[in-house]
Amino acid sequence: MNILESLEWRYASKRMNGLKVSAEKIDNILEAIRLAPSSMGLQPYTVLVIEDEELRKQILPVASNQPQIVESSHLLVFAAWDDITPAHIEEYIKHTAAVRNMPEEKLADFKNTLLQIAQNNTQEQNFNWAARQAYIAFGTALVAAASEQVDATPMEGFNSAALDELLNLKEKGLRSVTLLPLGYRDADNDWLAKLPKVRRQKEKLFLYQ
Amino acid sequence: MNILESLEWRYASKRMNGLKVSAEKIDNILEAIRLAPSSMGLQPYTVLVIEDEELRKQILPVASNQPQIVESSHLLVFAAWDDITPAHIEEYIKHTAAVRNMPEEKLADFKNTLLQIAQNNTQEQNFNWAARQAYIAFGTALVAAASEQVDATPMEGFNSAALDELLNLKEKGLRSVTLLPLGYRDADNDWLAKLPKVRRQKEKLFLYQ
Repeated sequence: MNILESLEWRYASKRMNGLKVSAEKIDNILEAIRLAPSSMGLQPYTVLVIEDEELRKQILPVASNQPQIVESSHLLVFAAWDDITPAHIEEYIKHTAAVRNMPEEKLADFKNTLLQIAQNNTQEQNFNWAARQAYIAFGTALVAAASEQVDATPMEGFNSAALDELLNLKEKGLRSVTLLPLGYRDADNDWLAKLPKVRRQKEKLFLYQ
Repeated sequence: MNILESLEWRYASKRMNGLKVSAEKIDNILEAIRLAPSSMGLQPYTVLVIEDEELRKQILPVASNQPQIVESSHLLVFAAWDDITPAHIEEYIKHTAAVRNMPEEKLADFKNTLLQIAQNNTQEQNFNWAARQAYIAFGTALVAAASEQVDATPMEGFNSAALDELLNLKEKGLRSVTLLPLGYRDADNDWLAKLPKVRRQKEKLFLYQ
């Protein structure tokens, strides 16, 4: 299947059958997330990979009791940094210098640019910017899952503050922005499984100039 | 190339060579964008596809003179709806009923949910929510371009208000959120082309539970 066929195949499964996704497929999806680009390359988010059944049962009520939370094999929680701090930037610059085998001083201008952007923004602006970057990785994960023929249901319908509390995200400097259960569709019990995909028409979605 | 190989191959080209991307490849990338999922399926954004060279020259100064604006083959502008209006929801419900061959009345509850969400939010909240959805499509576009071996440089570094003015986006109810020039890398003149990709380590980006 090429990407377009994978995107046609995928849909937001409302019911999953509980079958386990192999470690190899999960690793491939996570690696796609890891390779996703982000502004300035900062990747200002953490992705929680929750397999524990007990924990997923606890998440269920804060996610509007959507059954895929427990019927999936793995639940991904995309959590954006709640602020962009000098410590984040320091770590990123050190890591870049190490990967590219260059002295940190060569990255001084880049570092100052990052520090200035983060300092000129409010915490909420930094968080919103981080959340948008998380959505690039989220979009990448959706394509990667489909290409592995793994079902994935993008979810915004959950109580973010309650989930952050449950997962102790605040003390980690994180705020949950979106969920992605990974598993296999239970087509027989899913009202959505047989309905045609609805997408805006090409002539409305695109404006050629 | 599978998706991981494509993601390893891609990078944010700083210089492009001006060669045209074929209509077939552009159509495939746009179709991937069209198939990208969004919350409630609303797809609250428009993507401008700008091939016109004169217009791209005008965009150059509002995009920090980044050369890919004019060295690319096509420039995509992801523009989110500046609000979610009852007219948007009305059109979406009509389209869904038509695609799924069902009476609009069967979608009444869904429609009311959408109307309530949009009305309970401020315009800025609706815009920010729309922008996040646009980033899912943006992430999808990045993977699709890479799988077509087309270079694509994600760009947030532009004056959004000035671009909206230039492209008359405000009167269309749109605000530009991100740019994506599509073209081919000019590796000989691009300082970034030969540097190793920097990504957060797996053990830092993911938290297993």
